[in-house]
Amino acid sequence: MKISTDLLIVGGGPAGAVVAGTAKKYYPEKKILILKEKETGVIPCGIPYMVSSLAKPEDNIMSLTPLEKSGIEIKVDKAISLDKMEKKVTGHSNDEYFYEKLVLAIGSKPMIPPVAGIELENIFPIKKDFNYLSDMMNKLKKSQNVLILGGGFIGVEFADELASSEEKKNIYLVEMMPQILSFSFDDEFASLARGKLESKGVKIMTDIKVKEFSGRQTVEKATLSDGSILDIDAVVGGIGDVPNTELAREAGIDIGRGKGIWTDEYMRTSASSVFAVGDCAGKRDFFTRKDAPVKLASVATAEARIAGTNLYELKSIHQIHGTIGVFSTYIDGLVMGSAGLTENAAKTENFDFVTGESEVTDKHPGKMPGCSKIKIKLIFSKDSGILIGGQVAGSFSAGEIINIISMAIEKHFTASEMETFQMATHPYLTPPPTKYHLVIAAQDALKKL
Amino acid sequence: MKISTDLLIVGGGPAGAVVAGTAKKYYPEKKILILKEKETGVIPCGIPYMVSSLAKPEDNIMSLTPLEKSGIEIKVDKAISLDKMEKKVTGHSNDEYFYEKLVLAIGSKPMIPPVAGIELENIFPIKKDFNYLSDMMNKLKKSQNVLILGGGFIGVEFADELASSEEKKNIYLVEMMPQILSFSFDDEFASLARGKLESKGVKIMTDIKVKEFSGRQTVEKATLSDGSILDIDAVVGGIGDVPNTELAREAGIDIGRGKGIWTDEYMRTSASSVFAVGDCAGKRDFFTRKDAPVKLASVATAEARIAGTNLYELKSIHQIHGTIGVFSTYIDGLVMGSAGLTENAAKTENFDFVTGESEVTDKHPGKMPGCSKIKIKLIFSKDSGILIGGQVAGSFSAGEIINIISMAIEKHFTASEMETFQMATHPYLTPPPTKYHLVIAAQDALKKL
Repeated sequence: MKISTDLLIVGGGPAGAVVAGTAKKYYPEKKILILKEKETGVIPCGIPYMVSSLAKPEDNIMSLTPLEKSGIEIKVDKAISLDKMEKKVTGHSNDEYFYEKLVLAIGSKPMIPPVAGIELENIFPIKKDFNYLSDMMNKLKKSQNVLILGGGFIGVEFADELASSEEKKNIYLVEMMPQILSFSFDDEFASLARGKLESKGVKIMTDIKVKEFSGRQTVEKATLSDGSILDIDAVVGGIGDVPNTELAREAGIDIGRGKGIWTDEYMRTSASSVFAVGDCAGKRDFFTRKDAPVKLASVATAEARIAGTNLYELKSIHQIHGTIGVFSTYIDGLVMGSAGLTENAAKTENFDFVTGESEVTDKHPGKMPGCSKIKIKLIFSKDSGILIGGQVAGSFSAGEIINIISMAIEKHFTASEMETFQMATHPYLTPPPTKYHLVIAAQDALKKL
Repeated sequence: MKISTDLLIVGGGPAGAVVAGTAKKYYPEKKILILKEKETGVIPCGIPYMVSSLAKPEDNIMSLTPLEKSGIEIKVDKAISLDKMEKKVTGHSNDEYFYEKLVLAIGSKPMIPPVAGIELENIFPIKKDFNYLSDMMNKLKKSQNVLILGGGFIGVEFADELASSEEKKNIYLVEMMPQILSFSFDDEFASLARGKLESKGVKIMTDIKVKEFSGRQTVEKATLSDGSILDIDAVVGGIGDVPNTELAREAGIDIGRGKGIWTDEYMRTSASSVFAVGDCAGKRDFFTRKDAPVKLASVATAEARIAGTNLYELKSIHQIHGTIGVFSTYIDGLVMGSAGLTENAAKTENFDFVTGESEVTDKHPGKMPGCSKIKIKLIFSKDSGILIGGQVAGSFSAGEIINIISMAIEKHFTASEMETFQMATHPYLTPPPTKYHLVIAAQDALKKL
């Protein structure tokens, strides 16, 4: 069947959905069709929470019903080829979709490490597929010994959730770097997360790799690079994702240095009328213009808004100066956030910088009910005094504090400006005005500037 | 006795303390002396929480011990006159203090409304005096019927705390404006606070004044402007504060239009070597340069940092473009914040503006434990698209969301920039990336721009 539409969006994840919603606002007269691969989608960041925080896996389903109600058409089909001259996508169903504008929001797929035995049953890379994940949750529930491969955000969140589940389990977290979360946090922050997980019984092994998985049909053992052997029933893979680019590559669309589809500042690819957003699109680092290997729904949705606004004309000058990389996570009450460069990354990139630190109460006076600590580190470029990174560990407020830091980075806030930042303080909500976390950290840095 | 110092700070509240701490960092060789009026100081924003959140009034004492330990001298004495030619302050003790640089951080005093009977016992204006407040807390504990005069932040917080106290009380909140909190919130936000307080049993009366207090020695009755009479045992006054300026005025230092001591951008008064910071100093509004009647410890401490840094030379170019006015409050779990102009204020000042609203979950998916709603309103200048105000109501995260809004105002963020703001989102901490509160509100405004 030949189907014609104005805007064709390939991919029904957060990026695809936001392109559709944004385009509907700016170009209400256009016909919009989303092709999605699976009937039932999931909210990507909610996947670890299907283990125990959410009552049932269905609570993490991503619904596109509001989009359908607004008149956007949705079809389950897998795009298998793209003809950029004919402006046509062909689906697995053999249907042909003709477009005026095309947005590729085709996401990423889990990286599969080249480890012997990786194909055994009960080894679960994280696929954004509801039925797969539901089955995986069932099997994890029955597993006594679970190995988590990779100590990034996904690995750490799975470890926390598995350690919180009703059934007592042995949980091994295996990370090849010397510390967990080391791409986003310096050691003094990462070690807080590590301590929290270890106090819940998670066995964390760093600076070590899995050499081999073995078992008859189902995984039974993991042999580590130091020769030790763990008895295991299941593996959760959290070592990262690679962009889905086959469709674009085969259509002759340029791929960037960092393996994602190349786009300009407005998410336009090298092919006329074809945009790419989200995990499948390449990212440029805010600080260095290098490739940024960031796969985040928050970045994907920001890109989707840029594409959606500017599909038919460049309506809005968007200076997405690059991807900052802003992350937050939650480990059993400990909230951690990171934005921009860590101290380690700043060293690697050869920045001349100073750091400023603070550790204060998150309410005031310190005797307020529920008062706990909040720890901040800010990293400033030395000569210019400009903020290039920040980390926070604390309670619930930390989840938005990291977004203050991100905005400050985006707007090139200096240490001096941060020192006199006009903020609200309140006994139940923040440190005292004399000790506001970001201000004290900026002051600490200013002493060294 | 004649006492000589390098830096003399009059006032031991948050502003005075921060001047001292900052000066100590930047000018470690200078001798610093703080004169404070009372032996025991209190944390101003913590005063309402001495009623019930804090276990005992002593938990709200503001300690200057860390300053003393760092070598700063502290003396209890009341400054009664200032000779700017001789560079001398005379204390109530008759001691004379000679300075090289003087900072006035002499704060404000409660406004006393011209109501008959206001001098009766058990009518308590809020004085920042520990012994006075301790006594007041005792008397409030024993009072069955309490009238709170003024529905601003202090009044609302006292109402919430009194309604939470163990002893059942009748609490009347009397406000002359048509709504509580109306200087900082538009009606749809203020009414959330009102609903919360009313559901706790607080009787809120708006658009009405107290005409007279009566009683023999102690207050017994309040007659309102509509003729009704309330039986009361105590009154808490929360109608605002006026800057303490006598010392400066009598010394011939300029007072600004808005009743506070006039200062330049570096907090320098009209007298050589004399600075003024905090409640006693005049404020200029960020948007209009009019007088801003803002009395906030967060503003005071920002000013104190500017003064402390620049006492002996202008070390740091501080462009405090004016006072934004950023507030947050907490009413029994409901967190509310306001920054910049409300819609009402924008109308009054004759801005051409559009608003953008959002109401989303504060976690995601919506079934995450503890998930509640967050409501945002942003106000953008129509032609320039620049953010001029914002309000938020929600759970704990709202306390720092208002500070993101404040930073966005300070940095002239546009609606377009907010739409593609790079933020971290997380199931436990924020709405989904497809529905981040500030982004959705910006989009809503963009449709109208």
